[in-house]
Amino acid sequence: MHSKKIKVGIVGGTGYTGVELLRLLALHPDAELSVITSRGEAGLPVADMFPSLRGRVDLAFTDPAQADLSQCDVVFFATPHGVAMSQAQALVAAGVKVIDLAADFRLQDTAVFEKWYKLPHGCPDILANAVYGIPELYREQVRSAQVIGNPGCYPTTVLLGLAPLLEQGLVDLSVPIISDSKSGVSGAGRKAEVATLFAEASDNMKAYGVAGHRHHPEILAQLQLLAGTSLQFIFVPHLVPLIRGMLSTIYVKLSARGLKTDTQALYETRYQNEPFVDVLPPGSLPETRTVRGGNQLRLALHSQPDSGYLTVIAVQDNLVKGAAGQAVQNMNIMFGLDEQAGLNTVPLLP
Amino acid sequence: MHSKKIKVGIVGGTGYTGVELLRLLALHPDAELSVITSRGEAGLPVADMFPSLRGRVDLAFTDPAQADLSQCDVVFFATPHGVAMSQAQALVAAGVKVIDLAADFRLQDTAVFEKWYKLPHGCPDILANAVYGIPELYREQVRSAQVIGNPGCYPTTVLLGLAPLLEQGLVDLSVPIISDSKSGVSGAGRKAEVATLFAEASDNMKAYGVAGHRHHPEILAQLQLLAGTSLQFIFVPHLVPLIRGMLSTIYVKLSARGLKTDTQALYETRYQNEPFVDVLPPGSLPETRTVRGGNQLRLALHSQPDSGYLTVIAVQDNLVKGAAGQAVQNMNIMFGLDEQAGLNTVPLLP
Amino acid sequence: MHSKKIKVGIVGGTGYTGVELLRLLALHPDAELSVITSRGEAGLPVADMFPSLRGRVDLAFTDPAQADLSQCDVVFFATPHGVAMSQAQALVAAGVKVIDLAADFRLQDTAVFEKWYKLPHGCPDILANAVYGIPELYREQVRSAQVIGNPGCYPTTVLLGLAPLLEQGLVDLSVPIISDSKSGVSGAGRKAEVATLFAEASDNMKAYGVAGHRHHPEILAQLQLLAGTSLQFIFVPHLVPLIRGMLSTIYVKLSARGLKTDTQALYETRYQNEPFVDVLPPGSLPETRTVRGGNQLRLALHSQPDSGYLTVIAVQDNLVKGAAGQAVQNMNIMFGLDEQAGLNTVPLLP
Amino acid sequence: MHSKKIKVGIVGGTGYTGVELLRLLALHPDAELSVITSRGEAGLPVADMFPSLRGRVDLAFTDPAQADLSQCDVVFFATPHGVAMSQAQALVAAGVKVIDLAADFRLQDTAVFEKWYKLPHGCPDILANAVYGIPELYREQVRSAQVIGNPGCYPTTVLLGLAPLLEQGLVDLSVPIISDSKSGVSGAGRKAEVATLFAEASDNMKAYGVAGHRHHPEILAQLQLLAGTSLQFIFVPHLVPLIRGMLSTIYVKLSARGLKTDTQALYETRYQNEPFVDVLPPGSLPETRTVRGGNQLRLALHSQPDSGYLTVIAVQDNLVKGAAGQAVQNMNIMFGLDEQAGLNTVPLLP
Repeated sequence: MHSKKIKVGIVGGTGYTGVELLRLLALHPDAELSVITSRGEAGLPVADMFPSLRGRVDLAFTDPAQADLSQCDVVFFATPHGVAMSQAQALVAAGVKVIDLAADFRLQDTAVFEKWYKLPHGCPDILANAVYGIPELYREQVRSAQVIGNPGCYPTTVLLGLAPLLEQGLVDLSVPIISDSKSGVSGAGRKAEVATLFAEASDNMKAYGVAGHRHHPEILAQLQLLAGTSLQFIFVPHLVPLIRGMLSTIYVKLSARGLKTDTQALYETRYQNEPFVDVLPPGSLPETRTVRGGNQLRLALHSQPDSGYLTVIAVQDNLVKGAAGQAVQNMNIMFGLDEQAGLNTVPLLP
Repeated sequence: MHSKKIKVGIVGGTGYTGVELLRLLALHPDAELSVITSRGEAGLPVADMFPSLRGRVDLAFTDPAQADLSQCDVVFFATPHGVAMSQAQALVAAGVKVIDLAADFRLQDTAVFEKWYKLPHGCPDILANAVYGIPELYREQVRSAQVIGNPGCYPTTVLLGLAPLLEQGLVDLSVPIISDSKSGVSGAGRKAEVATLFAEASDNMKAYGVAGHRHHPEILAQLQLLAGTSLQFIFVPHLVPLIRGMLSTIYVKLSARGLKTDTQALYETRYQNEPFVDVLPPGSLPETRTVRGGNQLRLALHSQPDSGYLTVIAVQDNLVKGAAGQAVQNMNIMFGLDEQAGLNTVPLLP
Repeated sequence: MHSKKIKVGIVGGTGYTGVELLRLLALHPDAELSVITSRGEAGLPVADMFPSLRGRVDLAFTDPAQADLSQCDVVFFATPHGVAMSQAQALVAAGVKVIDLAADFRLQDTAVFEKWYKLPHGCPDILANAVYGIPELYREQVRSAQVIGNPGCYPTTVLLGLAPLLEQGLVDLSVPIISDSKSGVSGAGRKAEVATLFAEASDNMKAYGVAGHRHHPEILAQLQLLAGTSLQFIFVPHLVPLIRGMLSTIYVKLSARGLKTDTQALYETRYQNEPFVDVLPPGSLPETRTVRGGNQLRLALHSQPDSGYLTVIAVQDNLVKGAAGQAVQNMNIMFGLDEQAGLNTVPLLP
Repeated sequence: MHSKKIKVGIVGGTGYTGVELLRLLALHPDAELSVITSRGEAGLPVADMFPSLRGRVDLAFTDPAQADLSQCDVVFFATPHGVAMSQAQALVAAGVKVIDLAADFRLQDTAVFEKWYKLPHGCPDILANAVYGIPELYREQVRSAQVIGNPGCYPTTVLLGLAPLLEQGLVDLSVPIISDSKSGVSGAGRKAEVATLFAEASDNMKAYGVAGHRHHPEILAQLQLLAGTSLQFIFVPHLVPLIRGMLSTIYVKLSARGLKTDTQALYETRYQNEPFVDVLPPGSLPETRTVRGGNQLRLALHSQPDSGYLTVIAVQDNLVKGAAGQAVQNMNIMFGLDEQAGLNTVPLLP
């Protein structure tokens, strides 16, 4: 345990993952917000932009050119894709740990990265040592990581929803795994766009990214790592009128051995020591509001007896376990803190 | 074409399908509302309960015991399951046509009906001659039907979403067909229940009925009729915070012949003369609001090249094409009217 | 009655009032959409942008530079403030009638216009002959008008909510009239802005424009015309998470004569022949959804016995009676059509 | 400061104020949940009803007949009106402190209580010593109270919104004070009722209780205490489609002295040491989401120069500062704890 508080920097604090980091870190017992940058809002007190932080966060935004991030113990990037990789080298050289909430360090295959993000990768050597930050899968690597690629929101639900089965080789991979995923609108970020206006997105629902969503290659790569083999994966994300909340309904065919397995017991055992993964009792129907504002991911299993399929339903708050909460969880592990520090909240229901 | 207006009766007009029938019939050029019954609200002007109808509907609710439904040309049942079958015999004997918006005449197999609805079937002989009322599949039978079992909301999306493929035998039935379906909250009806309160259902999402939903046997029976063989079907409905709107994302594996077929052209041809089925251009992502208040069902196809699957996305207004609108469409056909009479509206967007 | 259909042009059809005009005019029995312009979307079929119009509107957007609006019988401007006044002169000269849904012809005092809209007025002579288009107040003038300034959404609720009292001199004007008004988010238009994103405006409520809203001078000028004297008016608009819908709660002190008046009877008499103003029975609590998609404005009166105040509650759909519906109503009157033509719908409830 | 944790009982924990108490107390550093009663749900683990509490609350509901509340240090009543007054005597006799979140101890005038709540008051002697629990107004009395009448949600906004003016005699009471108040739907409680179903209350807005709301006499009595004289008060509550959140827009006429006062400075000074009352900078427009889940009440002042009125806008979370949070704040004071204990959270935005 550190005797002094960890000094935290945030690059790009004006989006939803940024303000969510601020919400969580403002009350973190072992961390102190040291600097937060924004090109557009330099000089503005953070709490003027987000009055929910009044009295909790006294910082003002700093111009990135003026911010001395090398003084920090850790820097979070809550920025568009491509920013973290342009600054990681210098920070790593200065001994600063980096947690990127964008995609720069999620895909080990730089060709895949470049195909989906239309950017050459700026620091493949750092990428090679970066850790994909799902603690429930890679806790030991996170502990010693210098750079974390914090996972996408959808991938966290699918990977934690399938890990116990894939780790044990209980899936029939002759048919595709299908994830029908649904996300609240905050997942689209705090950008002024017509498609996510209230009058467009409220009382409305649609699929999107069916022809190809950036989280598909990320999930596929990780699923294949878990399975130890190649597999087929169909992913259809949907936009639903929630502010926060994500639900993935995952359809997977069990292998012959999988059909003989007590999958409920398997999942309960796999996650019994995980403070943030909650395997619900048999027959449960997880609701997104049961994790609103909390870092939990809740799971339920439903077998489809006629077809040998298992349906896994996973819910999380896309801004917490799907983004900022998982990032803080990673920070806690990297610095040897209590993994639940700053994340010990109760979801807001109703 | 009738020279006089059709006299319409509605049994049970206080729920959402009831008020939706009233909305559509109030302006129908060839129908006149003749009687509407409600045990609990007898004597109350309909427009006092639903002020949206002020100036459009002058009727008051009549006590069912006092209503002479045999004077009507057609009676709609917007009632709980079991009511229509207790009154159908007498109405049919009196020459009145019956359109039931509940489940009494949807399932030809009475054993299946009794298993799912926990009721013995009261008139199997009438059931045997009843027609399952999806005009796009059974228009000729509807034309001469005395009794219509108006389909459930979910089945309409799945059946119209798959009919062109199944009719042509283009599906690989060695794997299950999967429908991940999402419904607005009005689908649960206008009953006082905690689970559908605003403070429970808003900003929240969940799956439900995973262990078995009454629309599963209905869809399965119809899919098997279309395919001409038995098949496996996985159905997971979800509740999403929309008032109206339903979206089904259907995952189906194409057969070898299906993979060689231009499915877009197939669907466009199959539905080219259907005024209420709209096959969207390739790449489209249907939104529920594009059918809000209208009788259209809009479809889009997305192939999943690696796995040979096709994803069909279908949207409708669950209260219109999924219930009252389809019922009026059936009425129009039964009485030789213009099929679009009273349904010629533009959806409300935004 | 015209024997041929009226040829309609719309300038700026990509916003919410534009698509609402399209929705209403698509089914208007006596009007035909002739041209619709958009600088940014020239060439795009209208139904590609708004799929709710598929099968109902076949037009594509035309570049304004290429559009021959002088062929139209009437042109609607669903544009930002300032556009209509730059084109009105030429259209009027060509004998085309103009209905502006923006503010160019709402304020007779050009100094007030220039103060609030930061634009010099481009055609004061046309303004001098323009009519403020609330038919219930100015029907005769509308009938012969060449140019209509279609009222703002808020003003329609306040003016129709107070006209019977002010016309009869029943208000104690020694204290201010207060309107606490609430609007759905579509009132802010279809512009990409952070403040009206779903994730900002949903599950949230705020007042805005308290220091001065452009509808204040518009309402004040009209109230003073109705009262025949100057008066004080406090106006606080609020943004609430509705797509459509507007509710004004108006607090007015009755004069001694007002206190002796049967205000319910007064309102019922005043509006008895008005198809679009609905005075609800005593004790009613109007809901915005009872006018969703319809051109009705519904009113209820509540006396506050201890203080001599009357509370008037008025609801409308801000896009219909508050904008496009009222514009069509004005068109109907200007061309001698049935005032309800194309507006004879039933609001969408639920 | 107590050396041991306070033992807390909750009577009636199945409603929204109950689950909100659980959310706050689950993480309270100085309190421990000892017993929670429910007649209907006895034996059910609390976290089975509210899965948001899984892992945080291990209690099950106890049958009231079996619960030994006299072992508690404090008992919260989150029950319908009338329950607390039937049990208060015995608890007080046993030395247990009582905090009632219903109305039993809010109105000192039992005749007024009986008029509005249709119940005879069961323990007027205890009522006489009960304290109206707004700490910012009555902190000293709260400190030594045995029984607290926790205020209604609306009254908290109006009273804290007006206290600085009334305490200083800066209001012109010759005209009524008007509060136009808006509440989220959770304020109606977790009761199965048609009017608060999602499909009724979503995308809809209405006024209610205009003819008389139970919070009117409560507010009026407290306003008159603050003013030291009788006054007129008009109160119109509205239901808006928020889960949580309350906004009151208060219209008050300043006296001659009030007009000369720097009201912004007055409010800032009055509340400078109040951790839960936040006077926003001049020109601010408070949003309900800035207090979502937090115990803050945020205020802004807007002068209406022409009329001499001041508009006060106050927002709070109706379930926190408007109910459970204020109750915990009162508990903290009564037991000499840090007033912010357990309430030191950051509101959830977005």
